Amino acid sequence: MSQYKHVALIGLGLIASSISLAMRRVGMEARITGTARSKETRDTALALGLVDAVFNTAAEAVKGADLVILCVPVGAMSAIAKEIAPHLSEGCTVSDVGSVKQAVADAIGPHMPKNVHFIPAHPMAGTEKSGPDSGFASLFDNRWLLITPLPKSDHPAVERLVRFWTALGSNVELMEIEHHDLVAAVISHTPHLIAYTMVGVADGMNRVAKTEVVNYSAAGFRDFTRIAASDPTMWRDVFLNNKDATLEVLGRFTEELLALQRAIRLGDGDFLFDYFTRTRDIRRTIIDAGQDTEAADFGRNKPEK
Amino acid sequence: MSQYKHVALIGLGLIASSISLAMRRVGMEARITGTARSKETRDTALALGLVDAVFNTAAEAVKGADLVILCVPVGAMSAIAKEIAPHLSEGCTVSDVGSVKQAVADAIGPHMPKNVHFIPAHPMAGTEKSGPDSGFASLFDNRWLLITPLPKSDHPAVERLVRFWTALGSNVELMEIEHHDLVAAVISHTPHLIAYTMVGVADGMNRVAKTEVVNYSAAGFRDFTRIAASDPTMWRDVFLNNKDATLEVLGRFTEELLALQRAIRLGDGDFLFDYFTRTRDIRRTIIDAGQDTEAADFGRNKPEK
Repeated sequence: MSQYKHVALIGLGLIASSISLAMRRVGMEARITGTARSKETRDTALALGLVDAVFNTAAEAVKGADLVILCVPVGAMSAIAKEIAPHLSEGCTVSDVGSVKQAVADAIGPHMPKNVHFIPAHPMAGTEKSGPDSGFASLFDNRWLLITPLPKSDHPAVERLVRFWTALGSNVELMEIEHHDLVAAVISHTPHLIAYTMVGVADGMNRVAKTEVVNYSAAGFRDFTRIAASDPTMWRDVFLNNKDATLEVLGRFTEELLALQRAIRLGDGDFLFDYFTRTRDIRRTIIDAGQDTEAADFGRNKPEK
Repeated sequence: MSQYKHVALIGLGLIASSISLAMRRVGMEARITGTARSKETRDTALALGLVDAVFNTAAEAVKGADLVILCVPVGAMSAIAKEIAPHLSEGCTVSDVGSVKQAVADAIGPHMPKNVHFIPAHPMAGTEKSGPDSGFASLFDNRWLLITPLPKSDHPAVERLVRFWTALGSNVELMEIEHHDLVAAVISHTPHLIAYTMVGVADGMNRVAKTEVVNYSAAGFRDFTRIAASDPTMWRDVFLNNKDATLEVLGRFTEELLALQRAIRLGDGDFLFDYFTRTRDIRRTIIDAGQDTEAADFGRNKPEK
């Protein structure tokens, strides 16, 4: 009961392929089945050995699985939950990796049979890449995975899912579902929207040539372009499904930005200096927590003194 | 005449130390003198061999130099220009590395003697680190350096400075001074302000614990914290001295952000999807231009498939 015997991955992109590679890395012997919407993705996943068997439909892929993980954009969860419901094994666990949790719980929950454990989860890890060939086994190492159990979630089933993700390298934490969506809005959703916006602004400035934006991007802009290169479907669904929390954080952001804008207009150097000093401290604690490296500029420039 | 015999570096932080290391890497035999405001910085620079001699004042450091580079925050340029003016050698070139060019030209220009070539410049490269031990020889490799000659700039003196920076690894381009300040506002100044703001918002959210912000930062936020860890004095001076262009770009940014915010509120998925698709293209061209690597997440996670 401590380890799953058959894991079904629905959707075979960055997260699903990394789950498979991380499972294999630690020697989990579970059978892995999977499906994806496009034939090309299914073929690639099979060719890469990410799955033992690939199926054309989610309904087929989940048959016999004791763990089903939905790794599709948030907007696709409801239809898949409805499709797989009649085909789930008694006592199996259904989880997901969606970036939003209340909307996912609402989309999946109503379709789940009584004899199935539905436990939403969210790995706080990723890159700007997508597709079955973008995964890597260490993606979850020392990254946090948040599980947001529902009031009726069965305790042993939750514990089993915690052990699974811990084995893949994650630090696991349980969190209240509404709080999750606020935290995600602060540390992930709003930063992504802002990066998309900044890149859109640069792209739309008539008086600045695109070659200028590209060539001089090392001065700060390129960090935004990495984030803004993330999967458009996934992120559209995130914002549509975490509307309230995102709008709340955006309100705070606009307020702060206007305060800084006012300080620039008025020439209030002390305000700017104090603000910019405060933010350095957070960086220090993130490095100390092992969530980023000390290397300048993410080590893209190798120092050769 | 093609190579400088004596380079004086005023201010010994990230850029100045990288200039010294890049000069030595390509075997330039110029004598390097320098100064910095703090004794600790001066001692470190001397101990690291960044300079052949260090002086307590800029007036002493520039004596005999045929190239003087001001590597100090923009707000400090005027006082230093005034201080060094009487001590500059006839025919020497005075340049700088400030992120803003019109304000720097206004701050330095009036102090410059007639027999000196004053040529503003700006390397589009850097990291979030500061201080004499943060430099590295490859900082300028394949990065762009913008020179904004003044109407009265002497052509051979400009050419000589171009050759100097090209030898350090830079791609050099000449640009009109006002245009430089707009381009810098788009690809560097505004992104920095936005990153500072986002980190400030996360830090100020009462309902989200600081440990949560730190632990889950891998989901997007940490890229902002790197930028927002940049030197507060330098960046205060940038915003105070590139006010008009920054406010213009901020206005555009706020407008775009409100349009995206509205789309989220109204549930306009098509608008979001189209916006997020457009920004992917820019990322591609930045990688093709060699201004960032293809490696996911800046290669912080080494794929081990």
